[in-house]
Amino acid sequence: MSRGFPVGEYRRRLARAQARMGEEGLGALLLTTEPELRYFTGFLTRFWESPSRPWFLILPVSGDPVAVIPSIGAALMGATWVGDIRTWAAPDPEDDGVSLLVEALQEAGGPVGVPSGPETHLRMPLADFERVRRASGLEFTDDRGIVAGCRAIKSGAEIAKIAESCAIAGRAFARVGEIAAPGVPLSRVFRDFQRLLLEEGADWVPYLAGGAGAQGYADVISPATDAPLAVGDVLMLDTGAVRDGYFCDYDRNFAIGGASAAQRHAHARLIEATQAGLEAARPGARASDVWRVMADIVGGGEGAGRLGHGLGMQLTEGLSLTAKDHSELRPGMVITLEPGIDTAPGRIMVHEENIAITEGAPRLLSSMAGPDLPVI
Amino acid sequence: MSRGFPVGEYRRRLARAQARMGEEGLGALLLTTEPELRYFTGFLTRFWESPSRPWFLILPVSGDPVAVIPSIGAALMGATWVGDIRTWAAPDPEDDGVSLLVEALQEAGGPVGVPSGPETHLRMPLADFERVRRASGLEFTDDRGIVAGCRAIKSGAEIAKIAESCAIAGRAFARVGEIAAPGVPLSRVFRDFQRLLLEEGADWVPYLAGGAGAQGYADVISPATDAPLAVGDVLMLDTGAVRDGYFCDYDRNFAIGGASAAQRHAHARLIEATQAGLEAARPGARASDVWRVMADIVGGGEGAGRLGHGLGMQLTEGLSLTAKDHSELRPGMVITLEPGIDTAPGRIMVHEENIAITEGAPRLLSSMAGPDLPVI
Repeated sequence: MSRGFPVGEYRRRLARAQARMGEEGLGALLLTTEPELRYFTGFLTRFWESPSRPWFLILPVSGDPVAVIPSIGAALMGATWVGDIRTWAAPDPEDDGVSLLVEALQEAGGPVGVPSGPETHLRMPLADFERVRRASGLEFTDDRGIVAGCRAIKSGAEIAKIAESCAIAGRAFARVGEIAAPGVPLSRVFRDFQRLLLEEGADWVPYLAGGAGAQGYADVISPATDAPLAVGDVLMLDTGAVRDGYFCDYDRNFAIGGASAAQRHAHARLIEATQAGLEAARPGARASDVWRVMADIVGGGEGAGRLGHGLGMQLTEGLSLTAKDHSELRPGMVITLEPGIDTAPGRIMVHEENIAITEGAPRLLSSMAGPDLPVI
Repeated sequence: MSRGFPVGEYRRRLARAQARMGEEGLGALLLTTEPELRYFTGFLTRFWESPSRPWFLILPVSGDPVAVIPSIGAALMGATWVGDIRTWAAPDPEDDGVSLLVEALQEAGGPVGVPSGPETHLRMPLADFERVRRASGLEFTDDRGIVAGCRAIKSGAEIAKIAESCAIAGRAFARVGEIAAPGVPLSRVFRDFQRLLLEEGADWVPYLAGGAGAQGYADVISPATDAPLAVGDVLMLDTGAVRDGYFCDYDRNFAIGGASAAQRHAHARLIEATQAGLEAARPGARASDVWRVMADIVGGGEGAGRLGHGLGMQLTEGLSLTAKDHSELRPGMVITLEPGIDTAPGRIMVHEENIAITEGAPRLLSSMAGPDLPVI
């Protein structure tokens, strides 16, 4: 599949944002984070791993975006559709882009919307943000959720990229038997599974979690220990692999050597819950509705936690399948269904699939696992 | 090498921060980012890849830290030395940790220092930060650079971890001949080099950059294209691999099939500049002094850009080897020497090594490359 998107994709994203900015009376948006910049420009680099330099994108309510960026990014930003690129030699301890940003914001005019709601952060030093506010003389406010709203509804081209990442992970999951066996340390399984993802076409592997144990695992965020897999363990691997900047995020469980009745039962319940979530995930349903049908099957009531979330340019983004999130599902949203079940005190099993919301039945982006826990 | 650090390491970090807080009259520090939390607690997870939940750590001017975190992290934080862990069921659209954080801050008392200087950001929604400020009634200010100051001076145990990451990358660089040859797409080289890093012991590979071309490469931040390597290209791979949470960050250049005189000359100059930087990197020297001796060799004058930077828990952190950064080198700092040279209009070559500042000559953490450009 070709890399990136045609310019029309970015123009449509910009037009959607600008229409909303007009409705909200905003003069400009100020964006500072990796997904925000990439969404509107196509600027794709792993260099964000370095925190040393701030990067800015201004979306005026009319006209084209203005990139105010470190000169080290000029060549790469120059390869995107953005024409107005202003650079400085960052990091500059005296003026790290502040005066350049102030000037560009004043040209665009206020009020300046800054993403300020759930999941957002401002990727620049607070002290410099205050300097920009004061020096610009403009009004700053939140972005009214405009960026999150645009990003929540994926284009067909975006969904195709997520599907490709899901397919890569699917091929790697199919090869777990090559790397996991009794006696292999979990840390080596993690290392080798990342290798499989790369071999199957991932550009990189920003996220891998998992766990193993006879009665499930303690959580799904801990790094792997060097403890060896044992016959009777259930092994779970959960990955966010990336292809062309878009994530998959799903997992698979495997029984090592043989599956106990309890493991088989828990896995079947997880698949049953996922199927129920799949049935419920229709346009007009609320995130909390989809949560409810899954929670009713896996148990735990209100304490069942988050049983899925939006997905796309980030491992998690947008809505949460929780009791309290009443966001309405709409065609073009991509979400995960991620039921978890208590298997013993302090032990859980989790299953996850990725789907796109359509006008009718959701489209499975990962290839739905069957109820039988695979044995390796 | 064992994972993590003994509790004493964290207690010393805390004591250093608290001594400085006392001097500055701060009641507490509020920390929100991955390296900040990990530095003081040892909380290590790739789950930060998910932006959905904020995480908070409060360091009171006396007494132990207080973690205010999503309940999904309770088990893992419970395995650190932190005893006071307060959780909520995040993400909560009504109160995403705000009231819990306000209460904990009020117990600690103000003024509350928040990292606000170069390289920092606040990893929580701006709107929630404003809520916390208002509801707490406390004074908020910058952290006076206390966290950056503590992190800049590495302990012996930290340097050992960086050295281990460097050794892993060294073994992977020694195997580049296995994966790079004329006709191999650069994107496949990138993918395979990440695999080599994992095979050699990296926990994960947060960063990989590079480039290839007969006259050098256009920049060092672009993702790999599918263009195949050709005889006569110089290939550069630059990695930030991680072991136990600590980065290496260095590169190697390779001539494909054979090296031109211009390539050999440029490489030799880069090594000469690196050696000069190594000689200059003594306690009491300024970052700008080390920059100057390298810039004088590679040319470019003030436009030579950043020729190295601090390194540790992040790919880049702390000082910059630039004309304007006059930070003083001190024993325990870990930095990169990263001279770059113009090889043709819009083309460069870059070399990088990692060193620790000691009382005497710096300690090489990467194994210094020789002047001869290796041919594969």
